[in-house]
Amino acid sequence: MRIIEFRSDTLTKPTEEMRKAMYEAEVGDDVYGEDPTINKLEKIAAEKLGKEAALFVPTGTMGNQLALLCHTNRGEEIILEDWAHIYRYEVAGLSFLSGLQAKTIKGHNGIMNVNDVKDAICKDMDIHHPQTGLICLENTHNMAGGVVVPPEKMKEIYDLAKGNNIPVHLDGARVFNAATYLDCDVKEITQYTDSLMCCLSKGLSAPVGSILAGNKEFIERARRFRKMLGGGMRQAGILAAAGIIAIEGMTKRLYEDHKNIKLLSQGLGNIDGIEIDEETINTNILMINVKNTGYKSNELVAKMKDRGILTSEVTDEIIRFVTHRHISKEDIDYSIKVINEILS
Amino acid sequence: MRIIEFRSDTLTKPTEEMRKAMYEAEVGDDVYGEDPTINKLEKIAAEKLGKEAALFVPTGTMGNQLALLCHTNRGEEIILEDWAHIYRYEVAGLSFLSGLQAKTIKGHNGIMNVNDVKDAICKDMDIHHPQTGLICLENTHNMAGGVVVPPEKMKEIYDLAKGNNIPVHLDGARVFNAATYLDCDVKEITQYTDSLMCCLSKGLSAPVGSILAGNKEFIERARRFRKMLGGGMRQAGILAAAGIIAIEGMTKRLYEDHKNIKLLSQGLGNIDGIEIDEETINTNILMINVKNTGYKSNELVAKMKDRGILTSEVTDEIIRFVTHRHISKEDIDYSIKVINEILS
Amino acid sequence: MRIIEFRSDTLTKPTEEMRKAMYEAEVGDDVYGEDPTINKLEKIAAEKLGKEAALFVPTGTMGNQLALLCHTNRGEEIILEDWAHIYRYEVAGLSFLSGLQAKTIKGHNGIMNVNDVKDAICKDMDIHHPQTGLICLENTHNMAGGVVVPPEKMKEIYDLAKGNNIPVHLDGARVFNAATYLDCDVKEITQYTDSLMCCLSKGLSAPVGSILAGNKEFIERARRFRKMLGGGMRQAGILAAAGIIAIEGMTKRLYEDHKNIKLLSQGLGNIDGIEIDEETINTNILMINVKNTGYKSNELVAKMKDRGILTSEVTDEIIRFVTHRHISKEDIDYSIKVINEILS
Amino acid sequence: MRIIEFRSDTLTKPTEEMRKAMYEAEVGDDVYGEDPTINKLEKIAAEKLGKEAALFVPTGTMGNQLALLCHTNRGEEIILEDWAHIYRYEVAGLSFLSGLQAKTIKGHNGIMNVNDVKDAICKDMDIHHPQTGLICLENTHNMAGGVVVPPEKMKEIYDLAKGNNIPVHLDGARVFNAATYLDCDVKEITQYTDSLMCCLSKGLSAPVGSILAGNKEFIERARRFRKMLGGGMRQAGILAAAGIIAIEGMTKRLYEDHKNIKLLSQGLGNIDGIEIDEETINTNILMINVKNTGYKSNELVAKMKDRGILTSEVTDEIIRFVTHRHISKEDIDYSIKVINEILS
Repeated sequence: MRIIEFRSDTLTKPTEEMRKAMYEAEVGDDVYGEDPTINKLEKIAAEKLGKEAALFVPTGTMGNQLALLCHTNRGEEIILEDWAHIYRYEVAGLSFLSGLQAKTIKGHNGIMNVNDVKDAICKDMDIHHPQTGLICLENTHNMAGGVVVPPEKMKEIYDLAKGNNIPVHLDGARVFNAATYLDCDVKEITQYTDSLMCCLSKGLSAPVGSILAGNKEFIERARRFRKMLGGGMRQAGILAAAGIIAIEGMTKRLYEDHKNIKLLSQGLGNIDGIEIDEETINTNILMINVKNTGYKSNELVAKMKDRGILTSEVTDEIIRFVTHRHISKEDIDYSIKVINEILS
Repeated sequence: MRIIEFRSDTLTKPTEEMRKAMYEAEVGDDVYGEDPTINKLEKIAAEKLGKEAALFVPTGTMGNQLALLCHTNRGEEIILEDWAHIYRYEVAGLSFLSGLQAKTIKGHNGIMNVNDVKDAICKDMDIHHPQTGLICLENTHNMAGGVVVPPEKMKEIYDLAKGNNIPVHLDGARVFNAATYLDCDVKEITQYTDSLMCCLSKGLSAPVGSILAGNKEFIERARRFRKMLGGGMRQAGILAAAGIIAIEGMTKRLYEDHKNIKLLSQGLGNIDGIEIDEETINTNILMINVKNTGYKSNELVAKMKDRGILTSEVTDEIIRFVTHRHISKEDIDYSIKVINEILS
Repeated sequence: MRIIEFRSDTLTKPTEEMRKAMYEAEVGDDVYGEDPTINKLEKIAAEKLGKEAALFVPTGTMGNQLALLCHTNRGEEIILEDWAHIYRYEVAGLSFLSGLQAKTIKGHNGIMNVNDVKDAICKDMDIHHPQTGLICLENTHNMAGGVVVPPEKMKEIYDLAKGNNIPVHLDGARVFNAATYLDCDVKEITQYTDSLMCCLSKGLSAPVGSILAGNKEFIERARRFRKMLGGGMRQAGILAAAGIIAIEGMTKRLYEDHKNIKLLSQGLGNIDGIEIDEETINTNILMINVKNTGYKSNELVAKMKDRGILTSEVTDEIIRFVTHRHISKEDIDYSIKVINEILS
Repeated sequence: MRIIEFRSDTLTKPTEEMRKAMYEAEVGDDVYGEDPTINKLEKIAAEKLGKEAALFVPTGTMGNQLALLCHTNRGEEIILEDWAHIYRYEVAGLSFLSGLQAKTIKGHNGIMNVNDVKDAICKDMDIHHPQTGLICLENTHNMAGGVVVPPEKMKEIYDLAKGNNIPVHLDGARVFNAATYLDCDVKEITQYTDSLMCCLSKGLSAPVGSILAGNKEFIERARRFRKMLGGGMRQAGILAAAGIIAIEGMTKRLYEDHKNIKLLSQGLGNIDGIEIDEETINTNILMINVKNTGYKSNELVAKMKDRGILTSEVTDEIIRFVTHRHISKEDIDYSIKVINEILS
């Protein structure tokens, strides 16, 4: 049976070019700082992301958690959007590892209003109140449906943060999708954050790894906490070899995933019972609401799976589709046809 | 100048009877379990609250934090109302001490809807998601304006929790105010929680101390964590002597504070520009919205202070009044008159 | 039966003068900073201890744990003596609350050698190694038998610490016993530490409470963490009233306890089978080794208890006696006689 | 210049066979449990190590830290040898991540005496004392010089632990070196532990990765905490492909490293001023004491480095040599010659 994998872009496999690069990678012990391929990747990444320094980490979650550890102090509060990955999908690490309390804000399509952020900031020194230690952004916002947070919105929050002497971290797992959508250099986005994490896997197709970027002092501290969390790998240059190709060569192809999600959105939007918020169709993620189809999400996910179309249940009513390198225009056409059949 | 102290019922001073009892208290070393007055108070409190065992703690915050430590496991999530004291006024202890992530729900006047709680529960074992380890209630709900959560609402959530194998803790700092409002035995409230904390200070006027109650095994664990947090006091019977009077003798007088807040609410409600949500006037707390008075909260708080009326700014628009043993009907009449003068 | 209470000086009960002072204490809400008696005690204590500021805390454990929280950063190591109270008797709070790793040094009679401390310091910035964040001293050293750490020994370690930019905290639960032994102003001891905790209970006989002292900025931070741990009490002036008498009036009587322990030590030292290290008989604690008496500690503790003499088992071979206000010279004579009878 | 790399076996590079296997590896998303090569490695490793289940982790540190998180409860104490890697080289993670207090025991050549362990166990439920939650062993013991802990010594401690209902974890980073030395199946060692971590890098030459093994329920919990620490990698099968070769094919060659260390030890032992404890020469690590050479460690390390011989300074007096796949008998002979020249 033909399988179409819409569950996540994390499922992308390395390209042949990546495999070759990994095969040939020059390696050393990165704990000693001696892996030349890691060092090369970190240099490239820092430059590309417009930051002083960068650190290779095994996962995006580790990158985000290191940022929390490095930016904050004991017993502070962090502000983030209610459906932020850091809050919803990182196993309460923000509280368990960093001891931070989450102050969540419901955004419009994942985009926090600067006034809500302003109201949420606490710098009053009242001993009852946890003081705000960090503001986290997410761009593109995964659970809002791959929505791009406009740089001017980021700027508003960043300026507010700077005025209050609060650092800003960007969960930029898919920041290159945002830059692709905006048709801009990624630095136009990353200028409005003190640090960011971006994934080399996902749409960029590296098998393993993410980048944490920020200023030198921040990255030095992150290196120590990375060791503590167990992220100080040895001949990690194997992975960095694929990472270099991901960050240098794979960002250009993301527009294809965006084109495909638009086609899918148009096709599914014509099916009775499926509801789509067009406003959120920015990048490579599509959320459909199926409450008027007569099916619950899990039922429809199962029916689609029976026909080879793999998707994710988000809530009882919402199903997520993600496009990536292994999904072609033909897959989109075929999927629309099959889902049409299921629902008629 | 006549001073009327509406800032908080925490400001109540011990009664003459309490002072005498403290003077005469038979004491021992409570770390050794040998303070007879502490032992007596803990026994009385457990019975009164309908639980197997009770523990004296120096503050309500410690009682609540011990409950979190004893009910949960590493890296879980707890569900509580968005304006819960545990979330807003305990210095992020839930995250710092217990490593828990807060999942907040906006209630109606502080009362969470059982369906919202149901949606917030996570027991799916997905490794991304923190699992729900505890549900916290607050009754009366301080920041909602001393609102009483009806026992039937507590029962709904308690039954839901039990069905999901989740413990429930009640922040009952002012649970005797709730029982007074409902005109019921406090056990009709506490039956719907596994553990609770109630304060002997506040309206009950003891100088220091709160009670944590629950089953024996829970209290034994709490005793160990109390030692770790530094709450294992020595001749604490001094304080318990006042606590016994508070819990045995002072609950009956709370209805006076409730009468007074109603008078105050009626008087202030007639003043142009002051808005009051009548629905929330249950016990001894009054929140007034001053946005239409032409003043910001802090300005009006300052003006009232100049005239001897002490209140608390909650937000830019909201000011809190709390009644207690040191406020008489005359104080209420006088305060209404003065505030009327200020605002006209 | 005549009961002689050698288990601990924590068992001392408040004096009549303290009871009266508590009865009459002027109080306010200390969370608002408005308890005059607390404020007075904190001022007196700061001056007496030679520090800028002081904070009243419900227990010595809380005072010590606050010091760890305020002096250190995440993931550091602290250096302390192997039998330090902070390490052995504070329920792993140093690790659980502050996330610190303990680096212990075996001292001679509880006194760490400065060279051992030097060797234990880590400031190499190697990312594998936890960096030293604090050095803790204990004076008198409880488990070494109330041994006084000479100020010149403290100075050596303090100077070493300053040279390495490491703060020093003193667990001075019984620091007034040390000053009494040295016949000096307590400031001659406290000058060699950045912060210290001293108990108002124990030999000084207050029912509840300890003092944390240090510079202003340190105490301000401690105030916030005290709130988090649940140590922010309300009308705590009741306790402070006794505390003031303890710190102002009770230090002078400690020499009696020291005289009594010496008498006890001489008397018991003459009994066959009991071994005592004379070098450790400095203040109000006596450790006897009973391995040559034919009894295990717990057996002998039980036998003495049957005769009304209460003591503590420390190890299989060691039993602890502590003298305090409720033990007279006659009690000492009687106890020696009884123990003689038991062992012959 | 000829470079001989004695600093660590972590510096080993992947073999040609490993590179090929990584190039060809079948991969999937391991967070979804769908990476066939990871699944294969975990199955092989569990069988080989004699445990129900296994988990691939990016580093040995993460494997050890996961074991601590999974075996213990909040605020407990763990027992380990004073120079254990978990205590000395994992950035205080045991305290920071798991909130555990370390109770260290000085072993003889890294081997703890069972009676010392017995004395260190605390299960008395006294609320002052942290209770023992875990005993950690290390075999081979790195900082003792690659010393093998005899299985019968492990059994003694394991039996003691079981009798006290305490779990045992083995830091078996180099457990295959121990099995090689003992000329036994590794299961003869791992039978005396509830869980263990072993490295696929180091002598086994995989570029990245370690294995945590234990019972199924333990590994399921570890999978969740791995996600929290940021160790849940995506197409990790790339690394597992090398790992399979490491664990299946590379253990046989470790005896060569052991032969070489013996040669080196004999050669250097003949040099005036170098002192070697023959008893510790078990596997692939050699500690030499240089205090009688007239040089400090760092000076001699520098002098050897100038001649292309790379080693590690452990203390002022001790230098560590580690043999591995990239060091031949010729390298050993050459190194002895060069060091002889330096020291004469």
